[in-house]
Amino acid sequence: MKPPLPGPLARARLLTSPSVAPAVVHELERITGRPAGPEHPTAPDGPFVYVGDVLPEALRTPGLLWFHSVNAGTDALLAAGPWPEGALLTRTVGRMGERIAQYTLAWVLAECQSVPEHTAQHSRSEWRRLPSELAAGRTAVVHGTGRIGAAVGSLLRACSVRTVGVGRTPRAVPAGFDRVVLAGSDEETAALAEARWVVSALPLTGATERFFDAARFAAMEGATFINVGRGATVDMAALEAALHSGAVRRAVLDVLPDEPAEPGDPVWRLPRTVITSHSAGITADEDVVADFEACWEAVGEGRTPALAVDTGRGY
Amino acid sequence: MKPPLPGPLARARLLTSPSVAPAVVHELERITGRPAGPEHPTAPDGPFVYVGDVLPEALRTPGLLWFHSVNAGTDALLAAGPWPEGALLTRTVGRMGERIAQYTLAWVLAECQSVPEHTAQHSRSEWRRLPSELAAGRTAVVHGTGRIGAAVGSLLRACSVRTVGVGRTPRAVPAGFDRVVLAGSDEETAALAEARWVVSALPLTGATERFFDAARFAAMEGATFINVGRGATVDMAALEAALHSGAVRRAVLDVLPDEPAEPGDPVWRLPRTVITSHSAGITADEDVVADFEACWEAVGEGRTPALAVDTGRGY
Repeated sequence: MKPPLPGPLARARLLTSPSVAPAVVHELERITGRPAGPEHPTAPDGPFVYVGDVLPEALRTPGLLWFHSVNAGTDALLAAGPWPEGALLTRTVGRMGERIAQYTLAWVLAECQSVPEHTAQHSRSEWRRLPSELAAGRTAVVHGTGRIGAAVGSLLRACSVRTVGVGRTPRAVPAGFDRVVLAGSDEETAALAEARWVVSALPLTGATERFFDAARFAAMEGATFINVGRGATVDMAALEAALHSGAVRRAVLDVLPDEPAEPGDPVWRLPRTVITSHSAGITADEDVVADFEACWEAVGEGRTPALAVDTGRGY
Repeated sequence: MKPPLPGPLARARLLTSPSVAPAVVHELERITGRPAGPEHPTAPDGPFVYVGDVLPEALRTPGLLWFHSVNAGTDALLAAGPWPEGALLTRTVGRMGERIAQYTLAWVLAECQSVPEHTAQHSRSEWRRLPSELAAGRTAVVHGTGRIGAAVGSLLRACSVRTVGVGRTPRAVPAGFDRVVLAGSDEETAALAEARWVVSALPLTGATERFFDAARFAAMEGATFINVGRGATVDMAALEAALHSGAVRRAVLDVLPDEPAEPGDPVWRLPRTVITSHSAGITADEDVVADFEACWEAVGEGRTPALAVDTGRGY
């Protein structure tokens, strides 16, 4: 992923997708020092930079120097067709790691402290002490040891939860994890058996599709499964079987293979499961502006931005 | 609070209240090296040590060397009558600070992440994204800067919440707080206005009864009020008025002035409130054993245990 050359970048037009809020467009104009193009652009003659959620087919041309995604996940973007050669792809992460980490901890602690049960009791005017569980000292296994996984691990550790990261390539133990094991190793299987929580922060790539399969769920011994990554990384039939067998104690699913779920979708009837409608890591407008600005600065200095996506690996 | 003298302690009988579990009694016998007395003791002739929840009237005698409370709160114990002169009073705190801190953070994050709303949506098979709020960067005011308040502050800080402790006496800033202000000062009023959460971890003493009065609630500008201390520290009519005016956004009440609340009690109808039936800091059997053992060790060395209660101040 090389940054665009200074010459073409200097003459590039700035185009944005219709979903980008006017206030954000205004900030992008300020950062790049040029007006944004029409709302529904056709392919321009010269080079252009595009900021948006999806890349219209008409803009998949060699003129595309750089696409900045307003989202963190870029799997849908890359799945829509071959990526225009040489075009830089960057993404918005913003405070997403922090947001997803707070989401995860909220559901971990809600379970420990019986938040839904207390709410239900209250609605029945029922006074009954409920035992709580200390998260401290229990083990969470976090799949994905990148920025998001590390943010999740760090916050859980702050509550004295022991954290085991699962990665697909050997690497040094990132901040947030007590230790890291390799996906598919015996150490992963042992960690899944020990886990009180299994949190998936995996991106969707060819290598992670249906990563959580029958064997992985069978290795769990009563863990609560929390998916803040991508829905298609889970074999839903295998999850359902594991919920029935008890290998999975509860599930909190922010993401599903097919979103949104229709009211009649059988996923709503999975036992001991809460689906949260892909709400965990919503990026805010200020995240888009801040992350684009950081990328713009890097590109201006001839560096590859830290938020660049390896379009071959998919993240 | 002086520890009992070695001579009387050596000959003291060990008595326990009927509520103490047999496994705990067994451990107390091991620690003290003597058998526990009958389950429903009358006042013995000689000195005795009592471990339990309440002190039977018949045992309020000069023979009582030491009472170890299986609970952290000793206000009911002290309110039941004058404390026998010279008797040491110790209490069980256990991992209570940690437990109450995790309870508090669970409800803080449940609100930020709309846990009850997501649960309700799920039960209606409804897919709808809900915005979340980052706790990071918001301010929590914690009343009580002792062990429990500091544990609450520390855990909130780990989630990047700014923490202001409110104490009744000037003291150095304890771990867990960004700063500490004096109760009743202008600084407290300013902190209440800024607060996203106001957490009370106050014990009940003569000085804290109805501490949260109309003036204090009126100083809040939309804070959520969480009470993990004692119910009688709150003027409930003032709280109700503040919930109606919006000065208090929501309330999470683990404790009430009158517990348990009967099904017809009007507290169940307070708007935007959840009552959690005094479940936040339940001490576990192992907490009682560990804390008694630490006190026994201190007393054996002629020291006043760290868990001794100042029976004049009430905590």
